[in-house]
Amino acid sequence: MTAAANLAQANLKHEVADFKRRRIREEASHLFFEQGYESTTLDAIAQRLDVTKPFLYTHYANKTELLYDICRTGILQSLAAIEPILMDRTDSAVGRLGRLVEAVLTIIFDFQEFIVVYEREEKNLDEVQAREIREHRSLFDHKLATLLEQGQLAKEFEIVDAVLTANTIGGMMTWVALWYRSGGKRTRYQIVSHTMAMVFSVVGANRQDQSALVAAARR
Amino acid sequence: MTAAANLAQANLKHEVADFKRRRIREEASHLFFEQGYESTTLDAIAQRLDVTKPFLYTHYANKTELLYDICRTGILQSLAAIEPILMDRTDSAVGRLGRLVEAVLTIIFDFQEFIVVYEREEKNLDEVQAREIREHRSLFDHKLATLLEQGQLAKEFEIVDAVLTANTIGGMMTWVALWYRSGGKRTRYQIVSHTMAMVFSVVGANRQDQSALVAAARR
Repeated sequence: MTAAANLAQANLKHEVADFKRRRIREEASHLFFEQGYESTTLDAIAQRLDVTKPFLYTHYANKTELLYDICRTGILQSLAAIEPILMDRTDSAVGRLGRLVEAVLTIIFDFQEFIVVYEREEKNLDEVQAREIREHRSLFDHKLATLLEQGQLAKEFEIVDAVLTANTIGGMMTWVALWYRSGGKRTRYQIVSHTMAMVFSVVGANRQDQSALVAAARR
Repeated sequence: MTAAANLAQANLKHEVADFKRRRIREEASHLFFEQGYESTTLDAIAQRLDVTKPFLYTHYANKTELLYDICRTGILQSLAAIEPILMDRTDSAVGRLGRLVEAVLTIIFDFQEFIVVYEREEKNLDEVQAREIREHRSLFDHKLATLLEQGQLAKEFEIVDAVLTANTIGGMMTWVALWYRSGGKRTRYQIVSHTMAMVFSVVGANRQDQSALVAAARR
């Protein structure tokens, strides 16, 4: 077997392990969402996946580790998604802000239960884990505030307090996770374009820029 | 004893009973906030108030009743606070919206732990209780959407979707409960005036109206 084949084999193993962990998180998150963290046993999670409890232990040391991995998913995905958008200085601040809103809302729709579980169950994390996630969230707010300041400097935005405004925009997006119901009266695209328009209002973006971007998002 | 004296006596009893229930809710909410609903026993609540468990039972049939009374406090207080504001048709829509934001944020600051406990522990309510609270919340959103439509008709606001906008404004205010820390970098007044300015942006209120109202709130 060549070195390259060895490498390929090692990657697939890795992918399979990642896949297994992802499926464990999804089913655990669903049970935590439906029944609460404290009422959900590892046995119930194992049963739902038709695996044994020792199998779960090979992937997660205990139930708190699993909760921790669920709770940090939304913010880690969001940080990864916004990084290339924020770095793309060929785009205007308002353009990057629109793409950020769309990217983060997509994660919020895809990981809705994870985000709700985090909001509800944070108190069940140990202090080090909870602090780490809060630091990631602060980093997100900080990066968003920096974008707002760039737009302010470029005279694209009119903002009084970039930190409070970034926090509010984060809240407007997170709020969607707390009320959105799949199959409800409004589609994901309607929610994205409406949220985007409201975010542009909050930063005082030029109304013409806004309409063009919201129309682009609707296409 | 005269009839009037009888009446006064009966009211004080009522007030004392209300006071006792309020103190039970406050201490219970604090324990639910710190430790979670499921980990908090009625014994712990009784101990905190230096009363007996039978004393608690004379005011609340069980722990779920207590959770229910805590969970509905924020929305019932908010509905009561906004009613006279919404009915005051001598005031403009933008004026009433500003007063609404201030009134609701005041409740959110005063009952912050109650609101966080509701967001976290709703799943521990029974279905009838949970639905009743959700209906109160829908009623709040509906009343706010009606105000937005009145402002739209009066050409004070520019709104595309009053229902989604009302929901977002509700979220911007509730979000404050989820992050505000007393003694943090921003005072309550700063948060109120900034939220008010952002709410005015979201409804497309005239910038001149906005500044006057935000300045009024800062005084």
